Amino acid sequence: MAPDQTRPRIAALEVGGTKCICAVGRTPVELRLPANRLEVPSDAGPQQVLSRITEWFAAQHAREPLQAIGIASFGPLDLDPASPSYGSITSTPKPGWRDTDWLGAFARALPQVPVAIDTDVNGAALGEWQWGAAQGLDDFVYLTMGTGIGGGAMVGGRLVHGLLHPEMGHMRVPRIAGDDFAGVCPFHGDCWEGLCSGPALQARTGKAASALAADDPAWDYLLRYTAYAIGNIVCALSPRRIILGGSVRKAGALGEAAFFAGLRRELQRSLNGYVASAALTGKGSGGIDDYIVPPTQGDDAGICGAMVLAQRLVERPAVEG
Amino acid sequence: MAPDQTRPRIAALEVGGTKCICAVGRTPVELRLPANRLEVPSDAGPQQVLSRITEWFAAQHAREPLQAIGIASFGPLDLDPASPSYGSITSTPKPGWRDTDWLGAFARALPQVPVAIDTDVNGAALGEWQWGAAQGLDDFVYLTMGTGIGGGAMVGGRLVHGLLHPEMGHMRVPRIAGDDFAGVCPFHGDCWEGLCSGPALQARTGKAASALAADDPAWDYLLRYTAYAIGNIVCALSPRRIILGGSVRKAGALGEAAFFAGLRRELQRSLNGYVASAALTGKGSGGIDDYIVPPTQGDDAGICGAMVLAQRLVERPAVEG
Repeated sequence: MAPDQTRPRIAALEVGGTKCICAVGRTPVELRLPANRLEVPSDAGPQQVLSRITEWFAAQHAREPLQAIGIASFGPLDLDPASPSYGSITSTPKPGWRDTDWLGAFARALPQVPVAIDTDVNGAALGEWQWGAAQGLDDFVYLTMGTGIGGGAMVGGRLVHGLLHPEMGHMRVPRIAGDDFAGVCPFHGDCWEGLCSGPALQARTGKAASALAADDPAWDYLLRYTAYAIGNIVCALSPRRIILGGSVRKAGALGEAAFFAGLRRELQRSLNGYVASAALTGKGSGGIDDYIVPPTQGDDAGICGAMVLAQRLVERPAVEG
Repeated sequence: MAPDQTRPRIAALEVGGTKCICAVGRTPVELRLPANRLEVPSDAGPQQVLSRITEWFAAQHAREPLQAIGIASFGPLDLDPASPSYGSITSTPKPGWRDTDWLGAFARALPQVPVAIDTDVNGAALGEWQWGAAQGLDDFVYLTMGTGIGGGAMVGGRLVHGLLHPEMGHMRVPRIAGDDFAGVCPFHGDCWEGLCSGPALQARTGKAASALAADDPAWDYLLRYTAYAIGNIVCALSPRRIILGGSVRKAGALGEAAFFAGLRRELQRSLNGYVASAALTGKGSGGIDDYIVPPTQGDDAGICGAMVLAQRLVERPAVEG
C-alpha cells in the first residue's frame, strides 16, 4: 500500500513492562513495516531505554520530519497537565521505573514535536475503537494481561481518566477455596494482577505461561479469578464489549480459543444471569462470544493506539477521548 | 421561598426497596414540602404501589398540570428505548417486583405527560451534581447502601449506561478471614450487596442497623468489605469523589461520622498508596475526608435526581447525562 501523504507522519511508542515498541508512519500498515520499527527490551532499565528510544526517533525525525509523538505507557502515570510530574510514571512496582519522565525526555530530544501521552490500555482502547474490535462502540473496555494487568475504558465516546486513570489490575477478587498462593503484587498481594499476571503465573507454577501444560490447574485458577475481575468491571462500567489483549491470553498449550471459551463460561457462571442482557447471557455470536474478544489489532493494539493519540494532536478528533 | 414559576412543574418519583417517594414541585425546596409529597411503603407489592402512586400524581396533575415525570428506581431496569420492556424493572431479587412496568403505568395514567426513567443511583448522582456534593465534578460515583446496594457514575459529564447500567452492589470482594456469613444475595450469595446491605446486616446479626451496638463486630466486617468494593470502584472508574448515601451509612449507635471515618481508614489501608493522588492518600479535608462523603441532599438525593431527570426532558440540559 502506498503511504497516504495526506496523514501526518507520527512517532508511536508503546512502553510495556517487557519491551518498548517504537514505530513511525502515517497508517497502521506503515507502523508494522520492519524498517519503520524498533523494539527495545524494558529490562535494560529506564535511563538506557529512554536514550535508545529518543535517539532512534531523533534519527527518524532527521530523515523525514515527525509531526507528533504518541506514547502509550504502562502506569500509573501522572496525566494531570497542571502537575510538575505530568507525563511521568509514578508509583509502579516495576523495579527502577518509578518517576520515569517520558514527556521530559522527548521535550529534550525533539523539542519541536508535540507529545500526547496516555496509559497503554487507553491507547490500545483507542486503537481498537478506530480500527479494531470496538469500531462503532462508545462504551467498552480494553484489558491487557501480561507483565501487568490493566484496563482502559471508553464511556459515551470518551476515554475514562477521572482522578488519575483506571487501575483495573488492582481490583480485589474473592479467593478460590483451597488456593493458598499469596500473589505477587507488592502493594496488594493477591489483587487480580497479583494473582493472574504473567509473573504471577510464573511464581505460582515455576514456569512461563508459554511452557505450562494445557491441564495445569493454574489455568483454572487464572480463568476463575479473571472472570471475577471482569464481572466486577461489568458491574462497575456496564461495557458493551470487553477486548482482552496481552500475552497471557495466548495461554501456551491451552491455546487462545480454549482460554476465551473458559473465560466466557466462568464469567456467565459468576454473574449467574443477574445482568439481564443477551450480550452476556446468550451463547455464541451475538451473545458471550462477541462480548469478550481478543483485539483485532493483536499485539499491535497498543502501538496503533499510540498513533491515534498523536494523530489527535494534529488532526481534528473524530469524537473525543 | 416563593415558587419559581419559570421552571416546569415536575412529578418526581423515587422507587426504593423500602418505600416509594412521590413529590411535585418546581424546585428541590418545593419537593420537600409535606403538602407536595406522598410516601408509599414498597412492601404492599408493585400492583398496589403503582395504583396508589399513579392515582396521587393524576390528582396532582388535575389540580395543576405537571409538565414532566421523572422516575429514579431501583434496578435492574431495562433502559433501552428500543426494547419492548423499556422502563420496566427486570431481574430483581426483590419478591414480586420482577417485570414491573413503570413507564407503562404512567403512560396509561397520565398519557399526555412525558416520562424519563433511570436508576435510583443515576438519579441521585444527577441530584448531587446539580445541587449537592458533586457540583462542578464531571467524574464521580454515587453509591447507596440500604435495602440494596447500587452505584451511579458520571464520566466526563455523562451518566454511565453502556450495555444496561452499572450494578455496583453485585461486585465480588475478598472474604475476610474468619467470617463464615454466607451472604443474602439470591444471585451471588456473598457479593457486596449480599454481605453489606441492610437485609444482610439484619441476617448476620438478627438486628436492624439502627439497633446494633457501636462495638458490634458486624460494623468492622461491613466497613472492610465496603472498602474493598469502593477500592474496586476506584480501580475501575477513577472517580474524583464518591458520595455514599442510603440508610446503612447512618450506622445506628456507631453513628455516621464514625462510619465514614472507618470507611476512609479501611479504603486507604486497602489501596495501600497505589493510586498516588493526595485526594486518596491525604488525610483530612483536601484528602480522604473530601473523597468519600455523604450526600448534601441527604435522603432527598434520589427524589431531587428524579426531578432533574424530568427537567431535562423539558428544559435544555446543562451538560448531558
